[in-house]
Amino acid sequence: MSGILYGIGLGPGDPELMTLKAHRLISNARVIAYPAPDTGPSFARSIASDFIPAGIQEIPIIVPMRVDRFPAQRIYDKASSEISTVLKSGEDVVVLCEGDPFFYGSFMYLFERLSGQFPCEIVPGVTSLTACAAQLQRPLTSRTDILTVIPGPLPNDEIRTRIDNAQAVAIMKVGRHLARLKALLSDLDLLDKAGYVERASLPEQKVSRLADLDTDTAPYFSTILIYKGDEAWTLPPSFSS
Amino acid sequence: MSGILYGIGLGPGDPELMTLKAHRLISNARVIAYPAPDTGPSFARSIASDFIPAGIQEIPIIVPMRVDRFPAQRIYDKASSEISTVLKSGEDVVVLCEGDPFFYGSFMYLFERLSGQFPCEIVPGVTSLTACAAQLQRPLTSRTDILTVIPGPLPNDEIRTRIDNAQAVAIMKVGRHLARLKALLSDLDLLDKAGYVERASLPEQKVSRLADLDTDTAPYFSTILIYKGDEAWTLPPSFSS
Repeated sequence: MSGILYGIGLGPGDPELMTLKAHRLISNARVIAYPAPDTGPSFARSIASDFIPAGIQEIPIIVPMRVDRFPAQRIYDKASSEISTVLKSGEDVVVLCEGDPFFYGSFMYLFERLSGQFPCEIVPGVTSLTACAAQLQRPLTSRTDILTVIPGPLPNDEIRTRIDNAQAVAIMKVGRHLARLKALLSDLDLLDKAGYVERASLPEQKVSRLADLDTDTAPYFSTILIYKGDEAWTLPPSFSS
Repeated sequence: MSGILYGIGLGPGDPELMTLKAHRLISNARVIAYPAPDTGPSFARSIASDFIPAGIQEIPIIVPMRVDRFPAQRIYDKASSEISTVLKSGEDVVVLCEGDPFFYGSFMYLFERLSGQFPCEIVPGVTSLTACAAQLQRPLTSRTDILTVIPGPLPNDEIRTRIDNAQAVAIMKVGRHLARLKALLSDLDLLDKAGYVERASLPEQKVSRLADLDTDTAPYFSTILIYKGDEAWTLPPSFSS
């Protein structure tokens, strides 16, 4: 009997936004794996750190932060091979995933390599989408709204079309694209309807109207939410935190 | 000092998919409120029921299931007034919400009435979107995919355009629109790429390739997920559970 591969969503960052199931599986884990940068701590591991039993086997998956080299196939080949050895021995492996494993997550690189050979269970997590809406204190989407989720690195032309076709829009992974996206939304006369959240639910979180943002740089984990459908949800000028 | 209005996401149905924070707030609640049908039990309350302290004040918000009468403004006026009285007395009110409060949730009807007068905190929850992807064992969206979320009651023409413009599509609240949507996706030659999930994460959950579904009726909480971007994620013919 082989072990089970668990892909565990940890939520947006606040450890309390982890599910009870994630908490149980992590608290009882004997082997965990998680993405980690080449320098500094793993964000995923830091979310779960209070619940990781002492002395268990840990498999960090070191992924260089240079976005243009991502995904690094060989890194996931090596990690899959290491995880595979553990699963074959009958032990479960709990993979810690920021947000949700299947929502723009790197877990899919392990999943596509291992799911054909081993039983897998995915534990969904709170995504940054709804965590950001919660912090902006504004509904993300309702009734018969169409919601479109757009990765920030896409070119302006593509983003513009999708915004035209949706009532609610989330632009993820804003990062170094902030200045370009802000100019685009200004062009589209949507600045007043755009909220900005970085590092949602973490102590260093920043929440602002996009129009009031006084910087042109943003971390990778930053999101713009736009709601076009209802004037009542326009963010007030006084909004900030 | 008035009390705080909490909008608490409970996740898709499995009580273990509630966050630690939702669990803490519910376990310590003295007043809760929740949507309920005019006959039968409240789904939201049933998710949380193991954690609700005995003997606390409960405010059921009875909403008729007839979709064409929804939203029923007077029902939310009355509930808001009742909740408002509690908040003014200094007591917090914990509103139980299926999924996430700000993701197609009825909580917004209370929020728009009360958030100007009382402090509010939203606790995001796991949405059915990622819960369904977890059950289908297929990534919802990745890399630079655009994800579009479409309410099933929208007309075919509108749905068709949005599907054309996205790599990943979720059609929510399929319910009585199942046969029409299945025919539409067959027209678009996307049946093989469409997965179907109803009552995700509950014991009575149903997971299937849409093509294999042997019924034309679905409950309100049913979702179709389509992934167009990658052949490797086509659901295998053998898939079912």
